[in-house]
Amino acid sequence: MAEKSIFKFRIEPQDVDFTFHARLDSLCSIMLHMAGADAQNRGFGVDAIMVKKRAWVLSRMSVEIDRFPKQYEEMELRTWVSENRLLLSTRNFEMVDAAGEVVCRAVSQWCLIDYERRVPVSLEECDTFTPDKLCSAPSPCTPPRKLRGIEPTESTSRRVVYSDIDFNHHVNTMRYLAMMLDVLPIDMLSSNRPLRLDVHFMHECRLGQTISVGYCQQGEESMFEIISDEATVACRAVIEWR
Amino acid sequence: MAEKSIFKFRIEPQDVDFTFHARLDSLCSIMLHMAGADAQNRGFGVDAIMVKKRAWVLSRMSVEIDRFPKQYEEMELRTWVSENRLLLSTRNFEMVDAAGEVVCRAVSQWCLIDYERRVPVSLEECDTFTPDKLCSAPSPCTPPRKLRGIEPTESTSRRVVYSDIDFNHHVNTMRYLAMMLDVLPIDMLSSNRPLRLDVHFMHECRLGQTISVGYCQQGEESMFEIISDEATVACRAVIEWR
Repeated sequence: MAEKSIFKFRIEPQDVDFTFHARLDSLCSIMLHMAGADAQNRGFGVDAIMVKKRAWVLSRMSVEIDRFPKQYEEMELRTWVSENRLLLSTRNFEMVDAAGEVVCRAVSQWCLIDYERRVPVSLEECDTFTPDKLCSAPSPCTPPRKLRGIEPTESTSRRVVYSDIDFNHHVNTMRYLAMMLDVLPIDMLSSNRPLRLDVHFMHECRLGQTISVGYCQQGEESMFEIISDEATVACRAVIEWR
Repeated sequence: MAEKSIFKFRIEPQDVDFTFHARLDSLCSIMLHMAGADAQNRGFGVDAIMVKKRAWVLSRMSVEIDRFPKQYEEMELRTWVSENRLLLSTRNFEMVDAAGEVVCRAVSQWCLIDYERRVPVSLEECDTFTPDKLCSAPSPCTPPRKLRGIEPTESTSRRVVYSDIDFNHHVNTMRYLAMMLDVLPIDMLSSNRPLRLDVHFMHECRLGQTISVGYCQQGEESMFEIISDEATVACRAVIEWR
């Protein structure tokens, strides 16, 4: 079995908002970037699987944040893949501060797709991702939960532009998250309250499409849904404020 | 006198577009992030000057790109401050590939401001930024040129949102650049043609403002102007395609 991978990093000025604490989307981006680096180091990164027309697609993610780290805090990220099951690979994360306290935990679920045929393929097809690359440590929080549709009380729409898209011509997963945060009242974003985020990436949006970001608040839950102009649901998320 | 500072980095998947070459805004972001890290290492970073209510503000920048590096290329960034004159500090950049070829050169001009009174202050007021921190190497390309207003043939407007703003409640300088690139025809952006960019950051835009991004094409020059809803010019830029 594999060990957890450990990355050292620092909360940089570009990661914080005006409260000088890391933003939620920055913390998620840091985790995803290091997931990519870890997969590459272990031989199943985008470069290794691209030769077979395969790509990793992030399907769902749950993130629990107990404390938002401050600018210039020295942090450690631990990440490991714990399970490959039912076309989903589960990658976990723990973010630890200099005092050894876990401030953030996350579980992400990934599909392997054939990017020419646009279909998910079995994880066994990824022959560089062998079972010895799994780590026996359990997930550090509950996996992403199912999310239902919402009846938005607020909604904004915008066109998908160049800076939204990734190498695959689709909206970058972290841009969906930023778009959803952008409709929240600013006081909620700057409260730095502990939270749990569940997000589900359902359909890809492409350059030139118009997408609409819906939002409603139910008690301590902020609920989001992004719909494309083809009336398909692109992404759903819930932030539970703790 | 100081030596040039050298940072090693790699073009990561998040830095590239669908051509698998680094995006213009990514290359500029990398330079600005490393400028911040270098200023901090040398004792005149945002943290050191904040105690005196001072902040660095990027005023103008010129960037010449001969070749857009590809994903996973190992690069070296050299940066040095060559001059402090007339309230402007000049920081230079050279980006070098593994073969030792300079693929990108840039000159940036910075003001020191009093962020409570919102006025520029003399560089001599920054007592941690002493003349021995200057490097005698000349700028690697011509400094940012003066930019005049334009008569846009295309214009889009949008509201300033949370993900646009920095720790100072203002639109992040690199977001202006992304907004301008977003109005360009996609074929130009993905051409990876050599170019020179001149950009001038004139007034800050704040959360909740509506800004309009104007664009026109004159021969081989793409010209941009961002105007806020207070009818002030926030930013101008020209890309000269070579």
